[in-house]
Amino acid sequence: MRTYLECIPCFVRQTLEALRFVTEDEGVQEKALREVIRQVSEMDLGKSPPVMGQRIHRVIREVSGDEDPYRVVKVHFNLSALRLYPELKELVEGSGDALEAGVRLAIAGNVIDFGIQGSVEEADVREAIEEALEAPLERGPLEYFGEAMERAEKMLYLGDNAGEIVFDRLLIEQMPREKVTYVVRGGPVINDATMEDARETGLMEIVEVIDNGSDAPGTILETCSDGFRKRFDEADLIVAKGQGNYETVSEAPKEIFFALKAKCPVIARDLGCEVGEMIFRRKNPPGRV
Amino acid sequence: MRTYLECIPCFVRQTLEALRFVTEDEGVQEKALREVIRQVSEMDLGKSPPVMGQRIHRVIREVSGDEDPYRVVKVHFNLSALRLYPELKELVEGSGDALEAGVRLAIAGNVIDFGIQGSVEEADVREAIEEALEAPLERGPLEYFGEAMERAEKMLYLGDNAGEIVFDRLLIEQMPREKVTYVVRGGPVINDATMEDARETGLMEIVEVIDNGSDAPGTILETCSDGFRKRFDEADLIVAKGQGNYETVSEAPKEIFFALKAKCPVIARDLGCEVGEMIFRRKNPPGRV
Repeated sequence: MRTYLECIPCFVRQTLEALRFVTEDEGVQEKALREVIRQVSEMDLGKSPPVMGQRIHRVIREVSGDEDPYRVVKVHFNLSALRLYPELKELVEGSGDALEAGVRLAIAGNVIDFGIQGSVEEADVREAIEEALEAPLERGPLEYFGEAMERAEKMLYLGDNAGEIVFDRLLIEQMPREKVTYVVRGGPVINDATMEDARETGLMEIVEVIDNGSDAPGTILETCSDGFRKRFDEADLIVAKGQGNYETVSEAPKEIFFALKAKCPVIARDLGCEVGEMIFRRKNPPGRV
Repeated sequence: MRTYLECIPCFVRQTLEALRFVTEDEGVQEKALREVIRQVSEMDLGKSPPVMGQRIHRVIREVSGDEDPYRVVKVHFNLSALRLYPELKELVEGSGDALEAGVRLAIAGNVIDFGIQGSVEEADVREAIEEALEAPLERGPLEYFGEAMERAEKMLYLGDNAGEIVFDRLLIEQMPREKVTYVVRGGPVINDATMEDARETGLMEIVEVIDNGSDAPGTILETCSDGFRKRFDEADLIVAKGQGNYETVSEAPKEIFFALKAKCPVIARDLGCEVGEMIFRRKNPPGRV
């Protein structure tokens, strides 16, 4: 997905929020904000929004002097999601349709995103869970997903945020795990999940986990490692969590199921839905590729 | 008032809103937005926000190819305020305290501002009138205002927006008109009132009206005409309407009564009030100057 003009004020606002998260020094905030704005003034709108996000958060990490300034919120949400996990797992197993419940909860976890709003509270997560269990969700894509999993040999599950990774586990447990590889970011960016989060939450014990070699808040194939790109090419089914992955791989010629909360008007328009809506959608079913 | 870092995302958002108001051509919008962002990246935060506002709207007018792109909304709100005027005048005259009612309605008119939110509906104006008549307003400044007017010889009333100018008339009618001069902007900027609006609304027939020689959305004395600056220096009482005038003259060593709706968090913090609050406040009473 390209970058729209509306993304521009949003980049600037998100940058200021992130700067305030990493430092109280107004001088540092000002210098970094000017640098980001200068880069925004020259950016290529043909690229997807995470291309700018990647640059913004490189500046944020540089000025903070911290390679992983969101580590503390990542640990916090990993722990709080792990505390919820047993209850949620029971809920999935006790539901009439465990795959659907897994998809719904995986999408609920997508609220744990420090990129768009700058902060998330545990109450937001609780609320998202309740909503996710009730909200409308098309049956079609869920059925195709079941069929696609039977057919597929190599599945990639592109993860999004820390904390959310525990919610993803609930869905992965409903998938043929031996055929699934979970993908984390190659380096810290906002609160996106990295290998450390996969370790902390025990995901590595139940499924193969690889990193994509990139510090973008999405899956910008050109900035990913050769190893990851090979795995991406070979995969015959992809699950992509969150806005950043949607924005970066929605045009890839692969069968992809996108699972996300539509958190901003631009993506809602692109998806043809309302802001806040839960999306589980298939792109490029076989035969159309 | 200086520019805060929070103003920066807001400048960018306001620019995009204004660009969308003046043109549908995305190429033009993009080019102009980049130019404004480049200027923002280099701006002096020691200056007040209207300094950037002035630059932004010069770019907006240039790319629109229209010297007064907001003319149509100015006419619209002048007319709609004039239709309300007889009813509001009765309301002032029938109230127990006509000066207070005049102040309240003048502040209500301050919602007619296309700078901050990008658009205003007539329903917003109706709502603002009802709120303004009920909302709390400190008695102290109103009493000082009455006394100050008795003492003053030369009063300047710094106007803000078209439409609002009719609401100002209700207050001016409660002031010693022969001592009052109403000030409009020297050239079009957003929907700020100019000489044309003073003519259209009949204000010139009841009070002297001058322009300040500047196209800033506020009163940036350095960019005003010598003639206006002389009048400003000579004035012994000033009424300043709206955020732009507050932001630009709040530190001037003059007795000034500020009348405005606090429309953004930055100004609310500066004033020590809530966003949306009605403010009528005296700065620099005599003896402190």
